[in-house]
Amino acid sequence: MRVLILGGDGYLGWPTAMRFSGGGHEVGVVDNFARRRWVEEAGAHSLTPIATLDERIDAWREVAGREIVPYVGDISEGTFVAEVVREFEPDAIVHYGEQPSAPWSMKSVDHAVTTQANNVIGSLKLLWAIREHAPDAHLVKLGTMGEYGTPNIDIEEGFIEIEHNGRRDTLPFPKLPGSLYHLSKVHDSNNIHFACRVWGLRATDLNQGVVYGIETPETRLDERLATRFDYDELFGTALNRFAVQAVIGYPLTVYGKGGQTRGFLNILDTLQCVELTAANPPAAGEYRVFNQFTEVFNVGDLAEKVRHAAGEHGMDVQVDHVTNPRLELEEHYYNPTHTKLLSLGLRPTLLSETLIESMLDVIQRHRDRISEDVIAPVTQWRPEPLGQTLT
Amino acid sequence: MRVLILGGDGYLGWPTAMRFSGGGHEVGVVDNFARRRWVEEAGAHSLTPIATLDERIDAWREVAGREIVPYVGDISEGTFVAEVVREFEPDAIVHYGEQPSAPWSMKSVDHAVTTQANNVIGSLKLLWAIREHAPDAHLVKLGTMGEYGTPNIDIEEGFIEIEHNGRRDTLPFPKLPGSLYHLSKVHDSNNIHFACRVWGLRATDLNQGVVYGIETPETRLDERLATRFDYDELFGTALNRFAVQAVIGYPLTVYGKGGQTRGFLNILDTLQCVELTAANPPAAGEYRVFNQFTEVFNVGDLAEKVRHAAGEHGMDVQVDHVTNPRLELEEHYYNPTHTKLLSLGLRPTLLSETLIESMLDVIQRHRDRISEDVIAPVTQWRPEPLGQTLT
Repeated sequence: MRVLILGGDGYLGWPTAMRFSGGGHEVGVVDNFARRRWVEEAGAHSLTPIATLDERIDAWREVAGREIVPYVGDISEGTFVAEVVREFEPDAIVHYGEQPSAPWSMKSVDHAVTTQANNVIGSLKLLWAIREHAPDAHLVKLGTMGEYGTPNIDIEEGFIEIEHNGRRDTLPFPKLPGSLYHLSKVHDSNNIHFACRVWGLRATDLNQGVVYGIETPETRLDERLATRFDYDELFGTALNRFAVQAVIGYPLTVYGKGGQTRGFLNILDTLQCVELTAANPPAAGEYRVFNQFTEVFNVGDLAEKVRHAAGEHGMDVQVDHVTNPRLELEEHYYNPTHTKLLSLGLRPTLLSETLIESMLDVIQRHRDRISEDVIAPVTQWRPEPLGQTLT
Repeated sequence: MRVLILGGDGYLGWPTAMRFSGGGHEVGVVDNFARRRWVEEAGAHSLTPIATLDERIDAWREVAGREIVPYVGDISEGTFVAEVVREFEPDAIVHYGEQPSAPWSMKSVDHAVTTQANNVIGSLKLLWAIREHAPDAHLVKLGTMGEYGTPNIDIEEGFIEIEHNGRRDTLPFPKLPGSLYHLSKVHDSNNIHFACRVWGLRATDLNQGVVYGIETPETRLDERLATRFDYDELFGTALNRFAVQAVIGYPLTVYGKGGQTRGFLNILDTLQCVELTAANPPAAGEYRVFNQFTEVFNVGDLAEKVRHAAGEHGMDVQVDHVTNPRLELEEHYYNPTHTKLLSLGLRPTLLSETLIESMLDVIQRHRDRISEDVIAPVTQWRPEPLGQTLT
């Protein structure tokens, strides 16, 4: 299979590229290094030292004897993505090529516009490129569970049957996204669904939970193959951030009450899910949505797990309930379905104390690279500092 | 009230500007003349001769003794819209400033990208400008009934109560938009809803049906006050197009079976609805959706009405079922609610034979300006010419 990975230089994109390449597939990687730039502009950096894309590709050739083809450019600009799709002739396109941070999207009008323009226009150009040059290719799009928000009903996988005034229809599941970034993913989902309905494209939207983890079997092969690992307020996510905070003795930053409940998964399961999805493409014209996570935790419980594992590791860690910079429900119903990937064969890597401890070990090795300055949340969802929260 | 009209040089924007100005409000008009340019680039033109914005404003000052303030620029570019909002200090912002054609959005990747970038990024910059400079202003946003598509259940006004697995929530009504233009309006709606939820802005989304009509009391005051009237395949809409076709003896272009059912309203009622909405603003943080139309017709019946009225007028008109360039259901359930504007006091101007005949009279006066070349539908929803339709 010929697999094109958009955002293939990123946290998930690079390990995905190696996984497909190692599995015997022909892999192309598209990136404009925006993530490296955005993190750097925010004064932050990856915990793990990361090689350039060229160095990574060279190292992978040495270690695995396999070639990965790089395409450097911006999918939202000009005809770049159309040219790449035409030249590479992909069977599957795994699309991570988006601005992925909710707080980054809320920092200013320029951040908001860059997020929606990059994500929505980039994906729209991609859809048109597929229509023109690879209409049979399978688009595997990374969405987010955050598209749904926290409704007071069970969350289904993309669609819901609604009975209303004595009639029935199965319709897109209503969305209540919690940031301008999450909105960009909702816009994408709507555009992709349309491209399947009207142009007959085939796509799977992977509404992913919060990913944690640092290493995959491939990143461990050579230090030049390490993937990035962010722990700052903008690009770091809950468990990854807590583990870093634990290592430096920074009180774990639980936002507000900590009852915010989300789906989580190990980076190893991201790879499994994307592989399973690519191996089982939908029919032409079909738009599928898979909810991609393995476990549900609330943020307070997650902090407690890290605190406990760190304690076993000899670290004395505090949990701090900081003022929530976001506007979100801090206590709510949450029961999302996630059976489709399981029925394709996903075998979950559940969160264990051992796993947290192994993360702590890796972080400990890079401890001197941790900058305490970028940890505290400063980006507010509302113009003025919040006292209020939704209840 | 200080009312800022975005897209105030357009078909609906210009009559709306005069209506508010005539009603004693302070009116500012924002436009970049994109609509004039897009129509011209398509080789088409307004049936009615239209003055420039400056000429219109001069004529309005002469006729009505009132000042309308022009702001010329693109709301999706730079900081223009923020500067206008800061300077004008609006109480209400009526937002027509979007690329409004479904087929135009489907012509090419560039048309698709321009549509979504102009509409979504323009509206996003507007939301941020309101947040920064006029947080109490009421955004009156023109949406479209086409956001909903044609689900097999009754369409509610923006939100629906869903019972699912024994729990209930009231959530955004699921959308199935039928073009990349309609998608841009769905994206807007989602962004605006978020801005109300999270930033506490106040907005009303007017999901408007298909507008017909040429004149309003204000446009009749002076020929320099005429509004544009498009009849080409891209910017013309069903009834307006049929009336022009009838006048030149062109068989009425019903797409496919003609069972496509839509909400319609007279341009006079657009003005009424926008006035009523502005006069009754929502609370801070409230996002309302009004379905803005007065009657439901299917396209075949509408053609039949025009054929009959034209017959009474001594014209012998044929109806032609042309191959549908769009991908849409040609026979479907359609029962959208539209009570909110009625309960604010809307008194519908229903479609009568007399009204069609008066449209035919006005069109007859401009008959020598009609170009037959721009009438036939050429823009296809799918890459290849269609044989297929959804059933």
